Order: sequence, then structure tokens, then C-alpha cells
Amino acid sequence: MNKIYFDHAATTPVDSEVVKTVNKYMKDYYGNPSSIYQTGQIANNKLMEARKTIADFINAKDHSEIIFTSGGTESDNLAIKGTALALKEKGNHIITSKIEHHAVLHTCKYLEKHHDFEVTYLDVDQDGFVKIEDLKNSITDDTILVSIMAANNEIGTIQPIKEIGNLLKDKDILFHTDAVQAFGQLKIDVQKLNINLLSASAHKIYGPKGVGMLYLKKGTKLIPQNNGGAQERNRRGGTENIPGIMGFKKAVELIQKNRKDFIKHNKKLRDKLIDGLIDGIEKSIKEVTLNGPRDEQRLSNNVNFSFKYIEGESILLNLDMLGIAASSGSACTSGSLEPSHVLLAIGHTKATAHGSLRLSVGKDNTEEDIDYLLDKLPGIIQRIRDMSPLYNKKSN
Amino acid sequence: MNKIYFDHAATTPVDSEVVKTVNKYMKDYYGNPSSIYQTGQIANNKLMEARKTIADFINAKDHSEIIFTSGGTESDNLAIKGTALALKEKGNHIITSKIEHHAVLHTCKYLEKHHDFEVTYLDVDQDGFVKIEDLKNSITDDTILVSIMAANNEIGTIQPIKEIGNLLKDKDILFHTDAVQAFGQLKIDVQKLNINLLSASAHKIYGPKGVGMLYLKKGTKLIPQNNGGAQERNRRGGTENIPGIMGFKKAVELIQKNRKDFIKHNKKLRDKLIDGLIDGIEKSIKEVTLNGPRDEQRLSNNVNFSFKYIEGESILLNLDMLGIAASSGSACTSGSLEPSHVLLAIGHTKATAHGSLRLSVGKDNTEEDIDYLLDKLPGIIQRIRDMSPLYNKKSN
Repeated sequence: MNKIYFDHAATTPVDSEVVKTVNKYMKDYYGNPSSIYQTGQIANNKLMEARKTIADFINAKDHSEIIFTSGGTESDNLAIKGTALALKEKGNHIITSKIEHHAVLHTCKYLEKHHDFEVTYLDVDQDGFVKIEDLKNSITDDTILVSIMAANNEIGTIQPIKEIGNLLKDKDILFHTDAVQAFGQLKIDVQKLNINLLSASAHKIYGPKGVGMLYLKKGTKLIPQNNGGAQERNRRGGTENIPGIMGFKKAVELIQKNRKDFIKHNKKLRDKLIDGLIDGIEKSIKEVTLNGPRDEQRLSNNVNFSFKYIEGESILLNLDMLGIAASSGSACTSGSLEPSHVLLAIGHTKATAHGSLRLSVGKDNTEEDIDYLLDKLPGIIQRIRDMSPLYNKKSN
Repeated sequence: MNKIYFDHAATTPVDSEVVKTVNKYMKDYYGNPSSIYQTGQIANNKLMEARKTIADFINAKDHSEIIFTSGGTESDNLAIKGTALALKEKGNHIITSKIEHHAVLHTCKYLEKHHDFEVTYLDVDQDGFVKIEDLKNSITDDTILVSIMAANNEIGTIQPIKEIGNLLKDKDILFHTDAVQAFGQLKIDVQKLNINLLSASAHKIYGPKGVGMLYLKKGTKLIPQNNGGAQERNRRGGTENIPGIMGFKKAVELIQKNRKDFIKHNKKLRDKLIDGLIDGIEKSIKEVTLNGPRDEQRLSNNVNFSFKYIEGESILLNLDMLGIAASSGSACTSGSLEPSHVLLAIGHTKATAHGSLRLSVGKDNTEEDIDYLLDKLPGIIQRIRDMSPLYNKKSN
């Protein structure tokens, strides 16, 4: 196991309170909530409580607007396919951005291929922001859905979802936001922000894996994608995962209680990392770029740098040998040799896109962790560069 | 909580060993298996072990043939939609039966509505068996997939999947079996049985909720339905639920170790229940029908009776007051006022289909549980009938 964990954007350690909760519900609340006897009804009441906690957390009007799923990916699939198919007669145009998570992008591709939808993939600026003007100009009479993430998983850019919600408010176009990274970090009020659909996942906020949710504003038509039983008011078949859902509820409660301190802690570490890398490393290392914005519009836990002339994977392996867990981008795309679509979209070349390092901090990280990384990273970068033909060619 | 639980077909209590396993993996193995650092790779190795255990359990050729999902419903959806869309150019005809679980039936309806597929829903005989002759006669040049469940969730009928596999072996038609109820009870050898796809769920075998699997024979084309990351070899996006998957693995290991005794125990209780109800009740109650076959072709844990002139729900509420948990059919359809499609398919009228009681036994049930039920049920039935206008009309 790694002694320093800097990959909270990929997944978080499960909070010990959450572990206890899941444990308790596995042992004592095994009933199928669809059953009418006590053991089932007790589970069903718990399900309702969880729905209410999570609805309140995003200021949803009603707990019935929360659909539990198996995670963020399923939520994105359900949101996009579910509404697109329900509104197909009305229009076949969807707008999203080039830097969405693959759960959104690949779902859009699926709709293009299997249901004749047309999708506009908006460009972003060099910090990863979607431009409202571009969005406005992309809307056609056939546009039924806009899906723009609340914050980016690789470079931490917080999108202008308030402006997007405002723009779409008076139009007959649904607004879905993939909030998997933002959930728990940003204060999201789905009513104020005019959001129709919002995806979130438990394991990104110290909750259990295998559980997520989709907020679906009342009155929004949706064709279920997990066809089967009448669970989740006929919107998602499958026996409800009560222990997972109750763990999700507990994780939300903990965030609710500690959010201010949690964000403050994250930001402090994030900024120490960014400052240390920019001010410190640049002196000795040079040709380092911070990816994403360096201000309030950046997720509190995200740091992402590109180092010219090297492969991100080499940095990761070197860090791993020192006990540090980090990533070069989305965990979901590792294994693929393609450079990050997010880094390409903000202007990197294929070569520089390969040399990225994402460090995402979390509540158990300390300043000592940051110091350790800042102490070790320059040497690692230099060693890798010394072995890089590209770097040596450039130096000569 | 109910003191006697007779609804193991809906869901099972989680085995204490499984609880311990899930707990351990939540605490100590939180890494994202797609990550290249140690914490991720340790999780990834565990994932591989789980895949191997489950592959071996059904005699799959290779662990890569196991795709982990969020449960039986998702597995059925992925199996049917995934192969249908992959083979659409080849043909658009699917054959299934009228008594499949809604996860199969509603998925077929979805393909009819959204992808112009044609589906044949085979009749079954009075015990719920699909007739091979009917299946043979339904095959057309456009048939690409046959989906017949291994055993029925309401009436316990074990389908002739060996014969179906044999029939399809030399034809260019895929065979999917929903084995959610059969998994762990029947010995299933996917190679010998010529099965291309098999769905199973952990929470039906004393494992955790929210995790299932799809066996997909190597070489079988599949269009992913949970579009997103590259997990499960690009066949199912979403961060892998390692604690759930390891709990599933543990549940399979426990079944493997104890299957013989487990089945023997279940059968003993099942037969005591059936004998008691037929021989005992009929003397005083009359007009009772056993639904499903009364022999080796019945699941070891399933008992299902229809009582004329009454509503199953009244029986359930009365049993619940005595601390007994039972159901009138599938938990997934409760909340719906429709009579069971399974009971209608085996010849019940709407009226008699409403008066059914499913008792599914499990490893923690005792003979005393059965005695208690057999002691109480006749009185309950008589009391409800005494209040039934239909029954009184008939008696007068």
C-alpha cells in the first residue's frame, strides 16, 4: 500500500464511520425494500431517509427526485440516454463539451451511433472553461439537452454552471451536469441553478464504491435504461443496495458537517503544492505548466501539471517506489495509450499531453505529505528527463 | 424485524463471513484498480482473483469472460441489449419465454420499441416449462438470441437449459440464461451446456447487494451499455466495486464448500412445507394448488401455492403479524396491482393469480420454522376466506 495517497479524484478511502454504517446495514437490514413485511419495510424506510438526506443536500424539492444507481457512470448514462430517448420526437441534438468524462462522451457517441442523435462537442479555453457564447451559438431548434460537467476530473476546472442554467432556464432544453467530482466540494442548489439532472457518486466523497445517484427534476421525462422491476419509481430496475445507499447517506452527512474545514484543508494543501511546484520546481526544472485555472474556479483538491519531454507514467512509477500514489489523469482511461482528451482540448500536443501528473489531495493528507512530494519530485523529473531522447536533443 | 424469513428468493441475509470480507476490503483495499500504483494494483489483483473464482465456479474457460455488474438486472440488460445491438445487421429476432423475470421481459420490450427488434415470447406448460419443440419452431433466419432463464424466480421451475443449449449448439444463435435464481443451487457448466451468456447476482446467495456478473463467452460480440471508462475490458464502464466483488467471491466460495448440505437442507424444508400444505391444509382448506413442478425440476428452496378466493397480500400481512416474512411472487413487481405474469402464463385466471403465496427457504431456516407456519397458515387462510365475498358466494 502507498503511504501517501494523492489520487482522491480517482477514488477516496472509505471513512471509518461509513464502513461502520455499511457494516450495520449489511448485518441487520438485509430486507428487500420492495417487500411488504416488516423486514422489507424497515429497509424501505431507510431508503426513504437516504433519499431525503441527499435531496436536501442539493436542495432538491422532493426526495422522489433522487434515483439511486450503481455509480456516476450509470447516472450519466441514465441521464443522457434516458432523456434523449424520451425527447427524440422533439429533437435529436445534444450539446456537451470536449472535456467531459468518458461516461458522458461515450454515451453521446452511443446515441450518435445507435439512435441518430447529433452531438455538438464544445471547445474549451486554455483553462478548460466552456464559453457561454459558444454554447449559445450551438443551440438549434433541435437541441433537447445540454450536458456540461460541474467540475473537471483531470484539471479541476469549475464550469460556469450558474450561467449555463440561466441561459437554458427559459428555453425548452434540459440541463444535465455531471457533478461526480464537484459533489461535496461545491455547494450545489439544483433549484437555484436550474439544473434538471445531476449525477453524483459515493466513492468520490469517502463513501462506498458501487453506489451513486441521479437527481431528476420532477416532471422530466426519462426512459429507464436498467429495465426490470418497479424499483426507483419505475426508473431503475434492480434490488436496491441498501447498505451502499446508507453508506452514501452517511458520507453526505459527514461532508455536510465538515465541508468548510474540509475545503479549507484541501485548498491549503492544493495551493502549497501548486506554489511549491511552480515557484520551486520551475527554478530547477523549467518547462512546467499548470493545467487548469489557478484561482477560485479550480476544485479545492486538484493539482495537475505537465512536464515537457517526459511520460507521466514514468513519474508515477517513480513516485510509487517512494510510496506516493498519484495519476496522470483519469483512472478510467488508464490502460489506454491515448493521450488525455482533456489536455488535448486545452491546447496540449500529444507529446506534452503525455507528460502530465495529477495530484488530488484529501482529508487525510498532511503538510508533511506535500513537503515530501516537493522534496522528491524535482529529482525524479530531472532523472527521467536525463534519460529522454527528446530532452537531450533539445538540450544539445 | 421478522423472526422467520421465508423470502430468500427476493434476497438473502448476508453471510457473516461475507460481511467480514466486505468490511475488510472497504477498509484496506480502497484503491482504484485502474491505477498503476501499488494501492491500485493490489485492488486489481484482488479483482482478478474474484474473476477467477467465479469463472471456475461455472467452468468458464477464462476469467476474462466474467464481467462484473451492479446486479442481475444490469447483467440481463447488458446481455440482451449488448448482443442484440452487436448483431442487429445479422438479424432482429429474439426468442424468450413468457415467464422470464421483468429484467429480461422489459429489456426485450425496450428493444422492440427503440430498436425495431421482434421478440417471440414462448408459452410454457402448466408447470412453467418451455417446450423445446416450440422453441425449435420459433427459430427463423433472423433469430440471433435465445434468452431462457435457468430457473424461475416465482414458481421454481428449472428449465431444460441442457436441451436448449444442445438445440442451439450448431446454429448461429446465442444462448443467454438468466441464472439469478439458479446460481449456487444448480451446478452450471457453461461450456458443457453451450451457454454464451449467463447472468447472476450476489445478494441471492448470501452475498452483498449491488453486485452481479455476466458471463460472456470469449468471442461473443457485445455493445457496452454502461458507456464510460475502459473497465471490464471496455465492456462495462464505472469504477469497480472491489468490496462488493470480493463479498461476491466469498459468497461463491461458501456455496462451493457447502453446496451439497445446503441443497439437502433446503430440499428437506421445501418438501416438508409442500407436503404439509398439500396433505395437511387440503384436508381443512381445499382448493389449494401448488404452482410449479413437484420434483427434481423444482428449485431446492421454492414453494409457491395458490389459494382460491383470496388475495395473496392478505395472507402476507397476516403472516407478517406473526413474524413471518413471505411474498406473493417477485419482490420486483410488488407495488404493482397487476397479477403475476408467471401465474397467468401457467394457466391461472387473474383472480386465482392474485391468491398466491411464495415461501422460499434458506440456510438459516429450521424445521421448527416450517412447523410454525404449517400450524398458523390454515387458520389464516380460513379467516381470510370467511371475509371474502367470493368464497361466501361459492359456499352458499
